[in-house]
Amino acid sequence: MKQKPKLTIVKIGGKLLESEQLLAVTLQHFTHLQGAKMLVHGGGKAADQWCTALGISPIMKDGRRITDAATLEVVTMVYAGLENKKVVSQLQALGCDAIGLSGADANSILAHKRPVGVIDFGFAGDIDFVNAPRLKTLLEIGLSPVFCAITHDGQGLLLNTNADTIAAEMAKALTEYFEVRLFYCFEKAGVLADPADEQSVIPQLDQFAYQSGKKAGTIAAGMLPKLDNAFAALNAGVYSVNIGNPASLATAGGTNLALNTRTA
Amino acid sequence: MKQKPKLTIVKIGGKLLESEQLLAVTLQHFTHLQGAKMLVHGGGKAADQWCTALGISPIMKDGRRITDAATLEVVTMVYAGLENKKVVSQLQALGCDAIGLSGADANSILAHKRPVGVIDFGFAGDIDFVNAPRLKTLLEIGLSPVFCAITHDGQGLLLNTNADTIAAEMAKALTEYFEVRLFYCFEKAGVLADPADEQSVIPQLDQFAYQSGKKAGTIAAGMLPKLDNAFAALNAGVYSVNIGNPASLATAGGTNLALNTRTA
Repeated sequence: MKQKPKLTIVKIGGKLLESEQLLAVTLQHFTHLQGAKMLVHGGGKAADQWCTALGISPIMKDGRRITDAATLEVVTMVYAGLENKKVVSQLQALGCDAIGLSGADANSILAHKRPVGVIDFGFAGDIDFVNAPRLKTLLEIGLSPVFCAITHDGQGLLLNTNADTIAAEMAKALTEYFEVRLFYCFEKAGVLADPADEQSVIPQLDQFAYQSGKKAGTIAAGMLPKLDNAFAALNAGVYSVNIGNPASLATAGGTNLALNTRTA
Repeated sequence: MKQKPKLTIVKIGGKLLESEQLLAVTLQHFTHLQGAKMLVHGGGKAADQWCTALGISPIMKDGRRITDAATLEVVTMVYAGLENKKVVSQLQALGCDAIGLSGADANSILAHKRPVGVIDFGFAGDIDFVNAPRLKTLLEIGLSPVFCAITHDGQGLLLNTNADTIAAEMAKALTEYFEVRLFYCFEKAGVLADPADEQSVIPQLDQFAYQSGKKAGTIAAGMLPKLDNAFAALNAGVYSVNIGNPASLATAGGTNLALNTRTA
């Protein structure tokens, strides 16, 4: 079988988008990556600030945003406008030929509005389909797509979608064409064995240890959705998944996820 | 010489972006255009409303916006985020494979910050270069780029740029590869001989008649920058320029510009 070309997908979140200096370092590391690459960014804190400035109170349930119509307008502006174009223009200045996209652009990511259950999440999107052939074409003409956390339903409705999930779903879909390396980057050096100790990075985390840590409560609650997404990607054939700070992009460091056995 | 393929560039402005119904009709006409096509949109009124909601007073001089740092953030959000993704998601729903871009995306449009003269326009961009080869590639893979009125300087700075000018500069640059038809669409049926009479559309306007009308003051002042851009495009080899309402896209109607002689 012909070897697949390498593709790196980097999700950036946490404080990396909030600090000009951290963002600059992150984008430098991203620019230095060899081969095809894509970036996915959140922007939650900035959206909160703009909501506040506009007199819209952010509504959260279990750490997830409730996206009412007014909030959808703000996140579309902040994620697809302000944050996305900031990242793209800075990557262009570094010599990386970035193209900023939402899931509506080039029909990249189709989603549906999350059905109302115990909680009504409003205009939150759950992903149905990643347009992998289209993304492959954009990568092949030398572009580096930069995705914000907005998708669409194909009927004209934009939807707010978790950026960690977008990165995982893209990584899964693109394994058809690429050997995909997925990085979740934030300000910490990796998954911590002790959330209070920044030095306690778990270098390798397998699914068994993750489930144990989850039950024992030793893995920080905020990490759980990210790790669930990450292991799902690994199970679906993504070549590698790392969680760490921007420097981990250069070293493939941080926490390296493994399916069921720890490897050296 | 091999005949160049046809490309239609449509600038939409005026009230077309402010009314859901007018926008829907406009995008239907755009979707029905055969061959390669691109759209450029403004969004001035919406930006004013968001500025007001945020307590930022819009500053205008001679009908042009002064873009201070706070306003640049708002126009980036509104043009590249809200308006651009609204247009793209609606085009996708109509079956048009639209991709929303700013001038920073794929390094499409390079500009410089307008030098401070009698007026300091702030973060206003004057265009230096349209990346025609890159746009040609995007068109060739079947995408319809949808541009908002934001450019960049290649050094990480985003700039607010007149949408009429963007459309004209793109049309000029793409004449190297395409037979370019440029449409300026707004809510009126064309350039009016009598601004008070909606039926007084001038079917064909040549440069001589335009200069006369400009001196005599019979052409509405708001039309002048648009017509200056339009004639510059025609002079630079753009195949045709029309000014009219969305229906003119289907009929090549409205006001048809001509260089120096009226043709039947």
